[in-house]
Amino acid sequence: MAGLRMSRTSLLLLARYQRLPSRRFFSTTGRIMSNQEFRTEKDTFGELKVPADRYWGAQTQRSLQNFDIGGPTERLPPPLIKAFGVLKKAASVVNVGYGMDPRVGQAIQQAADEVISGKLIDHFPLVVFQTGSGTQSNMNVNEVISNRAIEILGGQLGSKTPVHPNDHVNMSQSSNDTFPTAMHVAAVTELVNNLIPALQGLHDALEEKSKAFDHIIKIGRTHLQDATPLTLGQEFSGYVQQVANGIERVKDVLPRLSLLAQGGTAVGTGLNTKKGFDVKVAAEISKISGIEFKTAPNKFEALAAHDALVEAHGALNVIACSFMKIANDIRYLGSGPRCGLGELSLPENEPGSSIMPGKVNPTQCEALTMVAAQVIGNQTVISVAGSYGQFELNVFKPVIIKNVLQSIRLLADGSRSFTKNCVVGIQANEQRINTLLNESLMLATILNSHLGYDNVAKCAKKAHKEGTTLKEATVALGFLTPEEFDEKVRPELMLYPDEP
Amino acid sequence: MAGLRMSRTSLLLLARYQRLPSRRFFSTTGRIMSNQEFRTEKDTFGELKVPADRYWGAQTQRSLQNFDIGGPTERLPPPLIKAFGVLKKAASVVNVGYGMDPRVGQAIQQAADEVISGKLIDHFPLVVFQTGSGTQSNMNVNEVISNRAIEILGGQLGSKTPVHPNDHVNMSQSSNDTFPTAMHVAAVTELVNNLIPALQGLHDALEEKSKAFDHIIKIGRTHLQDATPLTLGQEFSGYVQQVANGIERVKDVLPRLSLLAQGGTAVGTGLNTKKGFDVKVAAEISKISGIEFKTAPNKFEALAAHDALVEAHGALNVIACSFMKIANDIRYLGSGPRCGLGELSLPENEPGSSIMPGKVNPTQCEALTMVAAQVIGNQTVISVAGSYGQFELNVFKPVIIKNVLQSIRLLADGSRSFTKNCVVGIQANEQRINTLLNESLMLATILNSHLGYDNVAKCAKKAHKEGTTLKEATVALGFLTPEEFDEKVRPELMLYPDEP
Amino acid sequence: MAGLRMSRTSLLLLARYQRLPSRRFFSTTGRIMSNQEFRTEKDTFGELKVPADRYWGAQTQRSLQNFDIGGPTERLPPPLIKAFGVLKKAASVVNVGYGMDPRVGQAIQQAADEVISGKLIDHFPLVVFQTGSGTQSNMNVNEVISNRAIEILGGQLGSKTPVHPNDHVNMSQSSNDTFPTAMHVAAVTELVNNLIPALQGLHDALEEKSKAFDHIIKIGRTHLQDATPLTLGQEFSGYVQQVANGIERVKDVLPRLSLLAQGGTAVGTGLNTKKGFDVKVAAEISKISGIEFKTAPNKFEALAAHDALVEAHGALNVIACSFMKIANDIRYLGSGPRCGLGELSLPENEPGSSIMPGKVNPTQCEALTMVAAQVIGNQTVISVAGSYGQFELNVFKPVIIKNVLQSIRLLADGSRSFTKNCVVGIQANEQRINTLLNESLMLATILNSHLGYDNVAKCAKKAHKEGTTLKEATVALGFLTPEEFDEKVRPELMLYPDEP
Amino acid sequence: MAGLRMSRTSLLLLARYQRLPSRRFFSTTGRIMSNQEFRTEKDTFGELKVPADRYWGAQTQRSLQNFDIGGPTERLPPPLIKAFGVLKKAASVVNVGYGMDPRVGQAIQQAADEVISGKLIDHFPLVVFQTGSGTQSNMNVNEVISNRAIEILGGQLGSKTPVHPNDHVNMSQSSNDTFPTAMHVAAVTELVNNLIPALQGLHDALEEKSKAFDHIIKIGRTHLQDATPLTLGQEFSGYVQQVANGIERVKDVLPRLSLLAQGGTAVGTGLNTKKGFDVKVAAEISKISGIEFKTAPNKFEALAAHDALVEAHGALNVIACSFMKIANDIRYLGSGPRCGLGELSLPENEPGSSIMPGKVNPTQCEALTMVAAQVIGNQTVISVAGSYGQFELNVFKPVIIKNVLQSIRLLADGSRSFTKNCVVGIQANEQRINTLLNESLMLATILNSHLGYDNVAKCAKKAHKEGTTLKEATVALGFLTPEEFDEKVRPELMLYPDEP
Repeated sequence: MAGLRMSRTSLLLLARYQRLPSRRFFSTTGRIMSNQEFRTEKDTFGELKVPADRYWGAQTQRSLQNFDIGGPTERLPPPLIKAFGVLKKAASVVNVGYGMDPRVGQAIQQAADEVISGKLIDHFPLVVFQTGSGTQSNMNVNEVISNRAIEILGGQLGSKTPVHPNDHVNMSQSSNDTFPTAMHVAAVTELVNNLIPALQGLHDALEEKSKAFDHIIKIGRTHLQDATPLTLGQEFSGYVQQVANGIERVKDVLPRLSLLAQGGTAVGTGLNTKKGFDVKVAAEISKISGIEFKTAPNKFEALAAHDALVEAHGALNVIACSFMKIANDIRYLGSGPRCGLGELSLPENEPGSSIMPGKVNPTQCEALTMVAAQVIGNQTVISVAGSYGQFELNVFKPVIIKNVLQSIRLLADGSRSFTKNCVVGIQANEQRINTLLNESLMLATILNSHLGYDNVAKCAKKAHKEGTTLKEATVALGFLTPEEFDEKVRPELMLYPDEP
Repeated sequence: MAGLRMSRTSLLLLARYQRLPSRRFFSTTGRIMSNQEFRTEKDTFGELKVPADRYWGAQTQRSLQNFDIGGPTERLPPPLIKAFGVLKKAASVVNVGYGMDPRVGQAIQQAADEVISGKLIDHFPLVVFQTGSGTQSNMNVNEVISNRAIEILGGQLGSKTPVHPNDHVNMSQSSNDTFPTAMHVAAVTELVNNLIPALQGLHDALEEKSKAFDHIIKIGRTHLQDATPLTLGQEFSGYVQQVANGIERVKDVLPRLSLLAQGGTAVGTGLNTKKGFDVKVAAEISKISGIEFKTAPNKFEALAAHDALVEAHGALNVIACSFMKIANDIRYLGSGPRCGLGELSLPENEPGSSIMPGKVNPTQCEALTMVAAQVIGNQTVISVAGSYGQFELNVFKPVIIKNVLQSIRLLADGSRSFTKNCVVGIQANEQRINTLLNESLMLATILNSHLGYDNVAKCAKKAHKEGTTLKEATVALGFLTPEEFDEKVRPELMLYPDEP
Repeated sequence: MAGLRMSRTSLLLLARYQRLPSRRFFSTTGRIMSNQEFRTEKDTFGELKVPADRYWGAQTQRSLQNFDIGGPTERLPPPLIKAFGVLKKAASVVNVGYGMDPRVGQAIQQAADEVISGKLIDHFPLVVFQTGSGTQSNMNVNEVISNRAIEILGGQLGSKTPVHPNDHVNMSQSSNDTFPTAMHVAAVTELVNNLIPALQGLHDALEEKSKAFDHIIKIGRTHLQDATPLTLGQEFSGYVQQVANGIERVKDVLPRLSLLAQGGTAVGTGLNTKKGFDVKVAAEISKISGIEFKTAPNKFEALAAHDALVEAHGALNVIACSFMKIANDIRYLGSGPRCGLGELSLPENEPGSSIMPGKVNPTQCEALTMVAAQVIGNQTVISVAGSYGQFELNVFKPVIIKNVLQSIRLLADGSRSFTKNCVVGIQANEQRINTLLNESLMLATILNSHLGYDNVAKCAKKAHKEGTTLKEATVALGFLTPEEFDEKVRPELMLYPDEP
Repeated sequence: MAGLRMSRTSLLLLARYQRLPSRRFFSTTGRIMSNQEFRTEKDTFGELKVPADRYWGAQTQRSLQNFDIGGPTERLPPPLIKAFGVLKKAASVVNVGYGMDPRVGQAIQQAADEVISGKLIDHFPLVVFQTGSGTQSNMNVNEVISNRAIEILGGQLGSKTPVHPNDHVNMSQSSNDTFPTAMHVAAVTELVNNLIPALQGLHDALEEKSKAFDHIIKIGRTHLQDATPLTLGQEFSGYVQQVANGIERVKDVLPRLSLLAQGGTAVGTGLNTKKGFDVKVAAEISKISGIEFKTAPNKFEALAAHDALVEAHGALNVIACSFMKIANDIRYLGSGPRCGLGELSLPENEPGSSIMPGKVNPTQCEALTMVAAQVIGNQTVISVAGSYGQFELNVFKPVIIKNVLQSIRLLADGSRSFTKNCVVGIQANEQRINTLLNESLMLATILNSHLGYDNVAKCAKKAHKEGTTLKEATVALGFLTPEEFDEKVRPELMLYPDEP
């Protein structure tokens, strides 16, 4: 292992770590990457050296050098890049319809498909903390697609011919409408294809448990104090309802979130695009993605505000709150093995304590509650960023979409992990649950109609004082025989409202 | 004014202010309120002195003494008390149907009507920071209604007969289901009756401005930098859309928010209530309030989580973000009078500077943006509190509903104040707007198709360098005559997409 | 009680409640307050009717009418008004030194003392959501003090002579420097006089418990799971440390928070004040308040940013997090009485369940955790508002100081209530604690050195499987006699590091 | 480029992207990584295949498989791994002092040095969303160091001999004290070595500008409205003060943040470590890192709460608020080129508009304000997570430190980028500034003492109404000659307080 070969990303991380400016990677042929080769790309500012094995061009390279903030982990997330691929493909189809050379269009579409597939992901190095319009990321997409399309058509990288990044790939578009369009496409796609199925999986697993636990009567707890009984199935049904509502909440944000800014161009007027372009692009995006999108009714709002994403994250925030509650309940109910509540056994996925059987740390609950904390905080990021739109443009776009996509992914991954590694393996400790139920004094309430309030209170007080069960106290006081007690104090009668 | 008579609340404030324990007011007949008279009320803990002119009883008094946190400004808000009145009236109607003495029921309903009317508001002194279930506030309502009903029926305050706070007013209920029910009723009622109309008013005022400004072409601004033109009407149409969406967002949270916990009693099972009580109460509440409510499909969720309120506040949070954007835009557009953008004139409501005509501080914008900051922060309160449900009960109920109702009221009041004192009086400074538009170099883009990109760039660069207008530079370079320039550079052609 | 007389505030609340414009109170002599009398005050905008029994003038009245947002509960808090009294008194003393008529100065100071005493609090009706500079609140103070000073000197209210609100009370000052000065004076005063003593009280009560519980060995819990033992005193010592640190954190923010903006006047330059005024006013404020204040080294920063208050609230935010942890621990440790952890008994302050002895709801913990949630959210308000300074002035001043003062008061009141009504009455259930400790299997770890790791694991596994104690399993397996077990398994040896 | 070779990370990203379970990488020899080789490692749970070219062992591998949440971008950040290296080296030195085989110790220290250097970073694949104690990350460090030490000593990877991950690398430690120790070491190190120097650089650059702009008198702006003048240098001095305070704020959190939990072991008692170990380790860490650390006075607090990190992030939050204000001011002052304030020219780093000279988007300001939004939101994450400590352990450790380190890095990188690519290149447009100053009517205030208040108001009103300058109006009204006006209206006299 002496000659451990390091990945590019690792080198980047290492460089940051050692406080070398990471841009040395890209702008020099120095000692770190002495065998790196470069080609020259140019924009209106002049020429720049770009790594020879990358499709990006001058504008991307310039942003990379000017925004050395946060490093590779702060790159714009893959679902956004993929959404850009979808958008560029759709725009190209529409543009061919408006007269763009079909051969150029075809190459763009092929390159866009490669972006969509994810295999070009290493060609999108720009970080969140760049220009707030995401202009250079739009240009990154334009440059990669044009260079790849040039390659497909047998041209020379960097030549901008026969496929020009601006004139062809960005035709009829502006960064100011493409970036928010990609934001919405990415968010909707991840919600529909990733989060909703993950939540559904969690929902189903919880519902299965709820049904399986339907016969188990347990003590209820309010204010953390013993309360009247319910079934463990009923308790879990609350979680099921929370997750079911979470799915509905996500679905309910889709109508406004699937409205697209495309067609607004620079300030919302649609200057430099064509009438109908907006509607056609939305239709084409729907076709490519398999999800229905529509053009936004007001493009000024769609560029200058990101209320729809603030709203969408509001739904994620609720799910985070639900997760915090559910995971907390489950880990407290599983606390023990001897000195906690001990009503549930959680699956043991890692060594807890080698010497201590039964010490199963609720690690999946811990991961999920950390996800929840992150998402609750991301709401603040997004609210602040969303509140800062100025005139015709909100320039906090990258940080908004990054946090939205992070929340979606963490909630989705967290749901799946929690479902698979925790929920499906939860077991009820029926004996413990039953012991607690019977030790409880709360069952006394059912005796009110038989013995009268005052006598029942006497029994409960005696039991509490002497540490005995309610049955023992009631029998000792001579109110009931043991048999009578068992006949009357039946928790299964305490689980529903009375017949009227 | 020597003998300035102080109100009770003022005395309370003063007492706090002077670091006297405020409860001295209630528990002593000492120097401050030497003429205060008391009666004795009791609960299972014993007797307590209660101010003779107040309807509340022992449990309220006890909470008042045990939770001296925050003082009168932290009392539970009136809309919640009103909602409790609605709920207690509804429950009484249903209970009479189930057999409660109609004379008792009638008195309860009359007393509940007085609670709904607001005239008993001084009888609800409990603060937010009490028990997290709001139990004592439920008891406060029970005590006030029972005492007032006793009074109506000619009985003696504190006697609990013929109307008992628990046995009659709280019949078939538990604090654990009444408090969340009142939370939802209060929130929905305020959203429907207060916030939505206020937002509609703002929407209409903005829309009127948008139409009135439709003919005014102005420079666009992206990244705060000059961009292509749009009309002032288009710019305002973005705000109109934001507020219209805000109204829709509020409406969209109502379905889940109008589901009521009532009928779940202590832990969600409905023990000690009757089958059908939940449905009937929801129907009766709908009747009384004129707003449709339904019983929650899962009472365990309804007691243990407040996801629906977290979700509802998510909509308020979006509105706050919208308000921040709109008010910021308007105050920047109105900045000046000489050294700012100066495109708008805002109404002058207070003396700005006595010597400085035209210095109109955008105070309504300032109030509205402070409202926005408060609401954005309230989201964090509610998310944290909402995440903390434990087992069968979330015990952060009072702080959740207080923040929700504060946000609703501030947004509603803020909307009305901003509409009336700012929006309706906004005037466009057409001359200034026109001057800026013509000084701008962004109109150059329209010449591309006539002169070619390179020549247009030459004109713009010359104008920028020499500080002249684009017209002057273009004419000076001999590309166009002044007449040709005026004919071709027509901003009104830059406001829409091209015909395809 | 038929003729229940309503306080002014109640009427206001009622008016809001019934959706009457509250300003009708002030601007009409209509049916509600038909006996209200008015006098006429005027400012540069014209004349206004002011309630005859109020000292405020036209600018206050105008703000009251223009900002009908939130109602009386949103008024600027008393400590801020008091701080304004301190400031105006100090300024008057300094101004007399610079030549102001001593008779005028004396009257101002007497009136300011009355403001400081709190007895004029009903004369400060303005709400948070007004102009973001707090200008009208500064004018409210100027108007009240000048009118009261006029009265003292035998003049006529509203005449502005011989004491003018601007020329005398506001002499050498601007709203832009007085409001931030009052913010700092109020915050520091409340931190020093209110929060720190309250925290100290909590600290001392916890420390007393920590000492009292020093001999009680209990099971530790990590991940909520049984872990190695510690003493209950050690557990409480962690809380003691948190509160001690909290006090230090508050003290550490005082240096920057006690720097005053006074002397910066309108934009920070000090135009229209005198050299040295800033230093002298700070010295005088220190003298009046008994707390050391200094003039800010850079007045531009002091007007345009409120970083010092964002920082100060950061300390409050930490205290909120500490409180959440402490109160959560205590309520979980006190959960039961039969089906929870049951290690602590919390004092019973209200009826929990009449029939259920021992069901003591941890209501003080609930109130304190709700305080914590509120403060954590207030941080977001303050961060957002603090981030929005524009050019020479941050215009979110009222909402910042309102939230800071609310957090201080809630934490202070919460500390006192929690200390008095919970902490001092906490009792350890030694028997339960001991039972849990002995049932636990974690003590097994101490046997490693005696029996070897593998044998110990066998004992623990057997005990876990069979539900017996470790002792029973170890004896049953023949590794130790009961006496040997008791001799070796001594939890008191597990509380400290080994001797090296 | 057809055969584009993909890095490991890219493959991972791609896998996620294509919705393949990423763990297939690690647990199979399937098609994706058909040439991957594995070795077998084991823990108490059994055997696991581990990539042959990685040093980690079974516990790391297990966590990797069980927590497929968020992917590589959510890995624990390098500074934390580095801090673990420092800690493990220090512990080894101390353990040798207590008798550990020096040859083993030496190998551990050498391996730890490699961890510190960063070159083993690819061997730490675990994500934030794992167990909340970070146990598996501690084990990851133990496994990597032991395997690398084994390699150094010529042994076989996975053999746990002669260097055992638990018995040697983790000797006298527990995850529960190492993880919080590494958190503090990482945070302090990054604050001291990264953030403070970056802030100092920004401070110095702003201070240089403040000095360079000291002679430029400009219009002040309050409420965004024209106000009395100040110098551009004074305006920048406010920013300088904010950054200087930011540095002090960071320094002020170091005392509590440099207290280390090490020595508390599992629950804070120090069981299984040696007396004095805590003090010695802190001393050794200080020596290795060159930064002073001390052992925490109360280990129970140090494990169960993370108040010190909540506090530390409070300082970062203030810096974020400062950055938002500074960057907003600068971009508004630089707005234009024709239709904004135009007082500053910001450096042009990327093509703004090809046709539009002078359209320089304030992209560095945009990046910095996005950093600010992220950090403000991270505060919420950390407050929530910090509030959730339970009994002897806070199990939100990874999410806390991840957010703290992200905030530090973003603020540091952001400072450097903003300094280098924006601040140092800011130029004042003196002509524009002067024009605005002279057009303003605010200079009128200086004439009060010459012409009297009423006459000055007449001049200002005339100028405002007619759109002329104050000079023109004053001369036209005959109050002053042009020469007299110029002599009296000298803004340079309006920059300071009067002589007393």
